[in-house]
Amino acid sequence: MDDSHISLAHGNGGRYMRELISEVFNAHLANPHLDVHADAVPLPVANGEIVFTTDGFTVQPLEFPGGDIGSLAVHGTTNDLAVAGAIPQYLSLNAFIEEGLEIAVLDRVIGSLARAAQEVGVVVAAGDTKVLRRGEGGGLYLATTGVGMRDPKCAMSMGLIREGDSILVSGPIGDHGIAVLLAREEFGLRGDVKSDAASVLTLTQALLKVNGLRFMRDPTRGGLAAVAHEFAQGTGLGVRLDQAAVPVRDQVQAVCEMLGYDPYYLACEGRVVAVVAADHATEALSALQSQPHGSAAAIVGEFDGAPARVRLTTELGGERFLEELEDDPLPRIC
Amino acid sequence: MDDSHISLAHGNGGRYMRELISEVFNAHLANPHLDVHADAVPLPVANGEIVFTTDGFTVQPLEFPGGDIGSLAVHGTTNDLAVAGAIPQYLSLNAFIEEGLEIAVLDRVIGSLARAAQEVGVVVAAGDTKVLRRGEGGGLYLATTGVGMRDPKCAMSMGLIREGDSILVSGPIGDHGIAVLLAREEFGLRGDVKSDAASVLTLTQALLKVNGLRFMRDPTRGGLAAVAHEFAQGTGLGVRLDQAAVPVRDQVQAVCEMLGYDPYYLACEGRVVAVVAADHATEALSALQSQPHGSAAAIVGEFDGAPARVRLTTELGGERFLEELEDDPLPRIC
Repeated sequence: MDDSHISLAHGNGGRYMRELISEVFNAHLANPHLDVHADAVPLPVANGEIVFTTDGFTVQPLEFPGGDIGSLAVHGTTNDLAVAGAIPQYLSLNAFIEEGLEIAVLDRVIGSLARAAQEVGVVVAAGDTKVLRRGEGGGLYLATTGVGMRDPKCAMSMGLIREGDSILVSGPIGDHGIAVLLAREEFGLRGDVKSDAASVLTLTQALLKVNGLRFMRDPTRGGLAAVAHEFAQGTGLGVRLDQAAVPVRDQVQAVCEMLGYDPYYLACEGRVVAVVAADHATEALSALQSQPHGSAAAIVGEFDGAPARVRLTTELGGERFLEELEDDPLPRIC
Repeated sequence: MDDSHISLAHGNGGRYMRELISEVFNAHLANPHLDVHADAVPLPVANGEIVFTTDGFTVQPLEFPGGDIGSLAVHGTTNDLAVAGAIPQYLSLNAFIEEGLEIAVLDRVIGSLARAAQEVGVVVAAGDTKVLRRGEGGGLYLATTGVGMRDPKCAMSMGLIREGDSILVSGPIGDHGIAVLLAREEFGLRGDVKSDAASVLTLTQALLKVNGLRFMRDPTRGGLAAVAHEFAQGTGLGVRLDQAAVPVRDQVQAVCEMLGYDPYYLACEGRVVAVVAADHATEALSALQSQPHGSAAAIVGEFDGAPARVRLTTELGGERFLEELEDDPLPRIC
């Protein structure tokens, strides 16, 4: 790979992206507030704590079963606040619009964004638009920055994770990735897989009441595998996932097998991965399952004393490593 | 003009952009916090007030005399906080990077962004990168969202402006627009005009100490003319600008005359336009001139009882209307 020019692999949530962020962005911007490994960071203000996060969206096509770039921009950013333990309050919106985009499409997408914001209870308080020359954009790119409020006593971090802790996921993985893939129609496949794009706020608020909660994350770019790698790198512990326990829809599995994708690397946009002390894992599972979006939640793995890598226990009892993502399996998925 | 598809004129700071924002964005997103006419809005938090703003950057070329897209992204967003009377505290950064961009260019731009942030005293606390497929981006687009703190007693609004109030500008207009234009080299012209891109924080902090300060704005997209139009529309008063008083560098004027541009419509990225009660205008002028970036500040016009339009008093004593921008004179200038 040419390492002097940007490649698509620099945007995939895997190793090249991590290196780019570390070697260019963090090298210049390092400061005590910026945690390039966190999706949302706390900012001290008088008498409280606000949480701050940002995300860019380039999904193609702009509209897909279960959502569109507008609702995705709200869910993607507010979910980062939610898994940081915050309640989303305010959003800013940047729209980079390509010359020639149908205004009817823009209107549908911004309408959908507004409905999603209202459902989550977040207010779009600042915005900017830029128009890109025809051929210099992909129709529409959005960037949203979110501000949330968090109880300053909320204690969650990867540093709290211990050997033996359990890993839970709030629902089936890979739906978003496969829904967007099928919407592209480039493989001549059809299916009724819908994106899981949705707010995880009720799930995270339910988990925050569970004793022994260590950490939460939403498995977006790079999927469950990328989150598991972050866990291994952030804790120095082994991460073991149990293939039989990880919920994957039959249709998602079937499309993955046909096209050679692995659901563990596909983006989810409405799921939570939670780490909980083992003796509170069933309580956390009940908390998730009591919510409409959490009915298919499962305990899917644990931390152990093995080297800091991610292992998948297969249904036949074997084990394989889930390697860190290098090439991008699905560009412009979020 | 085809009104069912996006055109470059939807991005120029003039009438089409205003209509698009009102008919699509505001139609869906209207709420008590979102003021589509404000560049920065206050957000209540416990015991204080934070100010929130966002901006997208698509300038082409990425590097130009006096700045680059990185320093511009810091100045553009923190200047919106500064003219709202706030002190910038935190920034989020979104980078949309096109496949094939030289990493050395990205490194220079992010390094420049980091230096600008440090000079302004603002911390980049959240970030995200997305890689765009080759041909689906213009090299690099940035979006920055800023959070600042403001004294809740700070009272500035267009609603305070009265007939007779004076209009000041902190320095020569049009430098940024002409510097970027010359950097494109498409006209075969050369010159040593540098962008005025810089922080206006010391200027706005000096103005905040002046009694009779009504309102401040930075004249970016659409230039001084766009700000004057906002003033006329926002107050219902006539706005009279005095051509002889508006500072324009000879080189900027010469390039404008050669190419048919009007400096009043060109973006500045390091200027403040301030409205002050007439009897405090000279005090405000001294406050600006006491700052290194304000040495060429001038009183350039006033509000009067004429119809709510913008008039330019020419050096020969005549008057002409400065119409609202329609076609975009210079796409991708900021």
